[in-house]
Amino acid sequence: MAVNVAVVGATGAVGEEFLKILESRKFPLKELRLLASKRSAGKKIRFCGVDYTVQELTKHSFQGIKIALFSAGASISREYVPYALESGAICVDNSSAFRMDDDVPLVVPEVNPHDIVKHHGVIANPNCSTIQMVVALKPIHDVARIKRIVVSTYQAVSGAGLKAVDELQRETASILGGKGDFKRNLFPHQIAFNVLPQIPQNDAFLPNGYTSEEVKMVNETRKIMGDHNIRVTATTVRVPVIRGHSESVNVETEKKITAAEVKKLLSAAPGVKLVDDPANQLYPLATAAAGRDEVFVGRIREDESIDNGINMWIVSDNVRKGAALNAIQIAEKLL
Amino acid sequence: MAVNVAVVGATGAVGEEFLKILESRKFPLKELRLLASKRSAGKKIRFCGVDYTVQELTKHSFQGIKIALFSAGASISREYVPYALESGAICVDNSSAFRMDDDVPLVVPEVNPHDIVKHHGVIANPNCSTIQMVVALKPIHDVARIKRIVVSTYQAVSGAGLKAVDELQRETASILGGKGDFKRNLFPHQIAFNVLPQIPQNDAFLPNGYTSEEVKMVNETRKIMGDHNIRVTATTVRVPVIRGHSESVNVETEKKITAAEVKKLLSAAPGVKLVDDPANQLYPLATAAAGRDEVFVGRIREDESIDNGINMWIVSDNVRKGAALNAIQIAEKLL
Repeated sequence: MAVNVAVVGATGAVGEEFLKILESRKFPLKELRLLASKRSAGKKIRFCGVDYTVQELTKHSFQGIKIALFSAGASISREYVPYALESGAICVDNSSAFRMDDDVPLVVPEVNPHDIVKHHGVIANPNCSTIQMVVALKPIHDVARIKRIVVSTYQAVSGAGLKAVDELQRETASILGGKGDFKRNLFPHQIAFNVLPQIPQNDAFLPNGYTSEEVKMVNETRKIMGDHNIRVTATTVRVPVIRGHSESVNVETEKKITAAEVKKLLSAAPGVKLVDDPANQLYPLATAAAGRDEVFVGRIREDESIDNGINMWIVSDNVRKGAALNAIQIAEKLL
Repeated sequence: MAVNVAVVGATGAVGEEFLKILESRKFPLKELRLLASKRSAGKKIRFCGVDYTVQELTKHSFQGIKIALFSAGASISREYVPYALESGAICVDNSSAFRMDDDVPLVVPEVNPHDIVKHHGVIANPNCSTIQMVVALKPIHDVARIKRIVVSTYQAVSGAGLKAVDELQRETASILGGKGDFKRNLFPHQIAFNVLPQIPQNDAFLPNGYTSEEVKMVNETRKIMGDHNIRVTATTVRVPVIRGHSESVNVETEKKITAAEVKKLLSAAPGVKLVDDPANQLYPLATAAAGRDEVFVGRIREDESIDNGINMWIVSDNVRKGAALNAIQIAEKLL
């Protein structure tokens, strides 16, 4: 049952997490092939007590590979997924390259595991901010049918990679040290002690004023939930947090559902951990979600501005459930 | 025309800002009396090149005072505003003590200046997060009639006072320094590199699950806008920012209004500065709003999830327009 697995983008933030999770979940590996750009080739990475050498990604990298986990950006996926398919690998792609393709399932195992079987070699892993939201909302949709979602995000810098984490830390230290000469590489504006309403930071805005991240939350939510009637509007915001995306989510449902009912539903929902004890100042927090598998939900309350509304606060580790873990869960379902 | 002014809470974050603004706006002062708790009495504060001694606040502090600017919390206001009134002063109160009283006008000069004349000695200054939102929304309400507002906030720690700023900075330095032993005084959880969905941090949640800050945004918006049909739902969140509250605001209007029309309206609106040039990655930022008077609005776009919806990003200096400046603008209207 053990299989040959390739990790494309092994030296990135998600790549690092892939290895941690493959190890901790005892994924049935026969061979593990670590692939990255030429620049990272030759680097040693320790996995299960053994040093692995990172190899340069080429069109020949996938011979004998059963499952290829891609997390090196959309352009790398567009270029190399065809070679992986040619070699007979099944690709779980973490990028946005194929997510909205009709013949590519977009899967969150807690929400639409049944879509996996429809694949033709590629299964797409959704955007991090979408994954955690649909895990929390699916149980509500099943019971009360969600009509509309208004979401504002508080996204960690690790969503933009390890260099973004480094930039936040160095800029923060520079400001605390009273230095005014910090040179930014990644973010267009100060991210330390600031919030930026633009994700990703290097992407052009669309003609309608939205960012690509905001559009992903709209389209991917509908596709994963399998319901194109769900209306979604999103504002996605980067905050100076290292790990863990937080989301303020307002939902309007067809059928009335009380806050107590939502809490009961979510306390039994797969992949969800209810943290909702205001009397003890307990609610989901990015710092508490970092390194954890679950989607944390709290601050559940009825929205008194509409007949059937619920407000909630949804937090999860964006690198873990938002990326690496979800992809590995898909790979596990494939086996 | 010059008058005697007392500042209650002169040594706090808002008190400091009162003095900066009284000086820069050349407020017509005859006497300036700086009042604070016994602990701060005797402290010297420089104003217009002269050292003023902070006096202890007592029931006799208001003799001869024409305008008393209160910013020392609701319990101090409840205790001392009656003495100020007895002495013949008009009180502009920055606390929540009297805001929802029927005979106390709640005023944002750009929105409801006409309400000032209805006062019986006390005029309340609204909550910081409400002020910036209504300044940006009033012009839209006048034209298209706002039915519903869904707001999520990104609030700076200075809203919790100077000690909160100190705690954020010290905790951040401690984490960057790799120390794990930071002792928190104010926030119930780590605020450095984290976001907390609870404002204020020391207040109990209400039985319906909301915080007092969230309820203020609902009730104060209706009172200031003079329209009790506006429905509001809010999620208020503290972020590791020093100065400047940001808000993700979704509005539904009765009448269709396009993003272009909103931009045109707001570019001419009093107290508003439109910063909405996505092609050049320009949008309102907390760091850019800090120390400024205006309410900055950008990321204006049509919400495609409803017929008549607009999303926008509203940022302002919470200590300035959100507190001290607004109160002084009220005092100027009084003269």
